[in-house]
Amino acid sequence: MDAPKEYTHKYFLTAGECNAQQQMPITLIAQRVIEVATEHANILGVGYADLIKSNVGWVLSRLSIEMTRYPGINEEYSLTTWIEGFNRLYSERNMEIQDGNGQTVGYVRSIWVAIDMQTRRPSDLTSISWLAETVSDRPCPIAKQSRLLPIKPEEATLSAQYHFKVSDIDFNRHVNSVRYMDAFLDQWDLEHFDNNDIARFEIQYLHETHFGDKAYISTKQVENIVETEILVNNTANCRAKIEFRNKN
Amino acid sequence: MDAPKEYTHKYFLTAGECNAQQQMPITLIAQRVIEVATEHANILGVGYADLIKSNVGWVLSRLSIEMTRYPGINEEYSLTTWIEGFNRLYSERNMEIQDGNGQTVGYVRSIWVAIDMQTRRPSDLTSISWLAETVSDRPCPIAKQSRLLPIKPEEATLSAQYHFKVSDIDFNRHVNSVRYMDAFLDQWDLEHFDNNDIARFEIQYLHETHFGDKAYISTKQVENIVETEILVNNTANCRAKIEFRNKN
Repeated sequence: MDAPKEYTHKYFLTAGECNAQQQMPITLIAQRVIEVATEHANILGVGYADLIKSNVGWVLSRLSIEMTRYPGINEEYSLTTWIEGFNRLYSERNMEIQDGNGQTVGYVRSIWVAIDMQTRRPSDLTSISWLAETVSDRPCPIAKQSRLLPIKPEEATLSAQYHFKVSDIDFNRHVNSVRYMDAFLDQWDLEHFDNNDIARFEIQYLHETHFGDKAYISTKQVENIVETEILVNNTANCRAKIEFRNKN
Repeated sequence: MDAPKEYTHKYFLTAGECNAQQQMPITLIAQRVIEVATEHANILGVGYADLIKSNVGWVLSRLSIEMTRYPGINEEYSLTTWIEGFNRLYSERNMEIQDGNGQTVGYVRSIWVAIDMQTRRPSDLTSISWLAETVSDRPCPIAKQSRLLPIKPEEATLSAQYHFKVSDIDFNRHVNSVRYMDAFLDQWDLEHFDNNDIARFEIQYLHETHFGDKAYISTKQVENIVETEILVNNTANCRAKIEFRNKN
């Protein structure tokens, strides 16, 4: 087969898409990552329409985004994606984000597992093992995902509650990957983001969260490093690690 | 001048963009409307980058979306936009939404006012009065926006509270047009949207809402017709009228 190992999608950032700091929100980066991953998977013949025939779907398990600069209003940007690794259980997909001048402004690492759409349990990827041939050796110079640990109650410096609503739910009928990020980031106020960029955002999706679930968000912040988790009925459904960078 | 009176943008709807009913969310339609309006304005030379030089910006004042069918996962769709009317105070921009087969699935009416970016007060559009030359007589067969009235407390059938957070705020430092729609629609549960499509969604933005504002949402539903408003300190900042259509 002659599958393209790399795939690039160019975008234009409109004012309406920008956050209060007039930058590309990290949640929009996550949306673009999911979109570009989907498009490349479709091209490779392992997209939603292909896998659903075997009742299998991709689920984002881990995502790490590291940005040195965020595109601003009316800037062009692009995401280039490639597969770093592939095995029976998951696929490691990386991305490089460039601005309109071709300068690298960030990198992304993501891990996608295949699940059986009926049982919601991990599925076996052996039937598409040829995907290993599309692995690229293009370098991704950001750290691999770290192990995200539970927050001990006595270490928590912030906490919040959140009730998941209709607008949070996606086509799988569980909470949209991006809405967890919003729930985490909404713990700070606007001034915090006026003064701090997100240097690195790491998120791990552990269990599905559903419509109506009441979440408790527990957070430990030590200087510019944040560890945070979303608990539903005392189970951690999602964990994140956020590294802030002072803008001044 | 030789300005294109119509502009079309084609899209592909990914699974990750769909709602729990595996359809295009009406909020994504609103985002696309804003994006396509922005792109056409840029082409016409009246976009953000052009107007900001005179310290002027476009603000969405009213939006009406009427859909006969919502695109689903992996469907192509397009938005075609044109200006129906233009005067010193506002511009009326319409859109037609087609599916990948060129079948019309919906129409949009929108009203954009120009504001002074410093004072946040209406600005005069006389300096770009040549934009009237780009008005198109392409028909838009959906009703014009209706007058949205206050909800009398004794008529309210539903109410909710919402505290606007960082993720709700856009580049103008007020609540994102789309997040008001989420706040309105989050008053119902998932089952309601399993059984009902949104036939028509009309929204009017009256006053800007800011980070930290605590909103009271008051709603009057009579059969499939909903009138709803977001109040901050007893002032209606946003009103909507929603017409549901039973799916069965």
